[in-house]
Amino acid sequence: MVLRTIDWDSEKNTIHLVDQTLLPAEYKTIECSTVDSLCEAIKTLRVRGAPAIGAAGAYGIALAAHKSKASTALELLDELESKAAQIKSTRPTASNLSFSVERVINTIKSVAATKADIIDVATEEAQLIADEDIIINKKLSKRGAELLEDGDTVMTHCNAGRLACVGWGTALGVVRSAVEDGKEIRVVACETRPLHQGSRITTYELMEDKIPVTLITDSTAGYMMRRGLVDKVIVGADRITEDAVFNKIGTYTHSVLAKEHDIPFYVAAPASTVDCKHSEDEITIEERDPDELRYFKGSQVAPYNVPVYNPAFDATPMENITAVITEKGVFQPPFLIEELII
Amino acid sequence: MVLRTIDWDSEKNTIHLVDQTLLPAEYKTIECSTVDSLCEAIKTLRVRGAPAIGAAGAYGIALAAHKSKASTALELLDELESKAAQIKSTRPTASNLSFSVERVINTIKSVAATKADIIDVATEEAQLIADEDIIINKKLSKRGAELLEDGDTVMTHCNAGRLACVGWGTALGVVRSAVEDGKEIRVVACETRPLHQGSRITTYELMEDKIPVTLITDSTAGYMMRRGLVDKVIVGADRITEDAVFNKIGTYTHSVLAKEHDIPFYVAAPASTVDCKHSEDEITIEERDPDELRYFKGSQVAPYNVPVYNPAFDATPMENITAVITEKGVFQPPFLIEELII
Repeated sequence: MVLRTIDWDSEKNTIHLVDQTLLPAEYKTIECSTVDSLCEAIKTLRVRGAPAIGAAGAYGIALAAHKSKASTALELLDELESKAAQIKSTRPTASNLSFSVERVINTIKSVAATKADIIDVATEEAQLIADEDIIINKKLSKRGAELLEDGDTVMTHCNAGRLACVGWGTALGVVRSAVEDGKEIRVVACETRPLHQGSRITTYELMEDKIPVTLITDSTAGYMMRRGLVDKVIVGADRITEDAVFNKIGTYTHSVLAKEHDIPFYVAAPASTVDCKHSEDEITIEERDPDELRYFKGSQVAPYNVPVYNPAFDATPMENITAVITEKGVFQPPFLIEELII
Repeated sequence: MVLRTIDWDSEKNTIHLVDQTLLPAEYKTIECSTVDSLCEAIKTLRVRGAPAIGAAGAYGIALAAHKSKASTALELLDELESKAAQIKSTRPTASNLSFSVERVINTIKSVAATKADIIDVATEEAQLIADEDIIINKKLSKRGAELLEDGDTVMTHCNAGRLACVGWGTALGVVRSAVEDGKEIRVVACETRPLHQGSRITTYELMEDKIPVTLITDSTAGYMMRRGLVDKVIVGADRITEDAVFNKIGTYTHSVLAKEHDIPFYVAAPASTVDCKHSEDEITIEERDPDELRYFKGSQVAPYNVPVYNPAFDATPMENITAVITEKGVFQPPFLIEELII
């Protein structure tokens, strides 16, 4: 059984999700019964990781449909479109969120006629997106696992594991599949400042799976590579344009270091992460609260009024990437982005 | 007046130093009246920064001399040599610590005959080392300032400011001198995990001096460079061998990024940081407590038993360095290390 990070409660018509802000101290599921509480959970990263928030967004439309007091199908559709905009605005950089939300809305529009239809279709489509996530991750992981050799030490940044998805994982899914294939793989997890997804989540899920992991500060990556202690780098992605991969801040730095040390640099992500409509300079990079750097759990780390630049993501140019691993295949830049478009 | 990070109390024959673990919340001076308490202060980074711990080590010998119960000059010298070993072992990577401690011991040996002589000479030599630190920093800063242009944004890592020295600073001393020369300089401070010397100390002292500073996570450095937001990088050094510069972990990563983006990468340090006797592979890199990554002020950030690799320093090969700024001149690799030897 694949553990699910996020799931639909079909009795209460609510969303259950693992509150990742509590990890690793506590593994606790919370229930979202309104779109507002779901949006709060996405914004505060209780649920995070591009595929997981894609599923969260889809479930959000189902939730909105169930809770709506609209009296006609048209009124309900109007309401869902407004909720869709609200959900999509919570995190602007990841493409899976808007992709999944739009997919539910478009399916409703194309097949649902009555109010009851809309509610059913929204729920089924969201459930399908969540189910597909695990299937897609396993498929891309199987392809990616072929790139790993027995004995490899793989460095990763942030968390692109089962907790970033509905289940299984992308970058860590590749590692999991390689281990399932009988390969011995060690992981180096970068802690991933400022919110420590590497320390809190990646190490947690790898230790649960008994995959050897070593935690480092983000800035130790270069020195480890120089010492020959890293064989490959695999990260996830929040959005892939023709010219760049958007992922957690620090990914670009790791790509430059990998290039300097002739270390393969892989990106593992579902094809739904590909955005063929935009190029790098058209994408908004989310900037987060300066207090994420000034405080840690209420404890002061920096002058309270120091100016901070705190982008959540960066963009890695395609030329720094050895290959993009998707469920549709492994593509080496300059690859044909058309092949990746759903 | 130059504020002093560490000073000698000639009435009580004790050492006063700013407890840097409390910054930025509190600026507090503590008193060390035993070598053990001084060693604890060095180990726990209450006093840190290669030049500052150099002065601390020298004062430590003076302290040991004053507190000694030895009855003869020979007995006292024996005791001081044992205390010197104890002090030097607190932090193995920085060269200034052993350099300063040995300088006091050697001066004692060459000029002191009686017990009273030894006590006087130790105190005077330690005081001289501390006084010289400020003079040397101002001299190297003046030379370094010529490399900065009006309007430059300078990135730095860790803290190589007045709080890393007795006063004025090395990397930040260069910035201070450029500002004194009327240039407008902005600083980008990397927070410097795991102990946040950048967030806590660099931002603190620059804000005190009203020099504009922006705080970033260490892994944001690459993305800022890619966006053209960094003109120069200046860092300090804990040890300079013929082939490498040892400095806070993360320095090597920044040097690779600077090279990738054609950004000058400067190292500012007193000539006493140069170690002509060893090469990179002979230097011990201090590895610190894994809990520095697992906890933050008692709050859990990672699984309590996750394996951690936590080197305090890394080594940057000379070819990644544009120039080394010392009080004796600005040297571009491959420079003659002989010129830098005192």
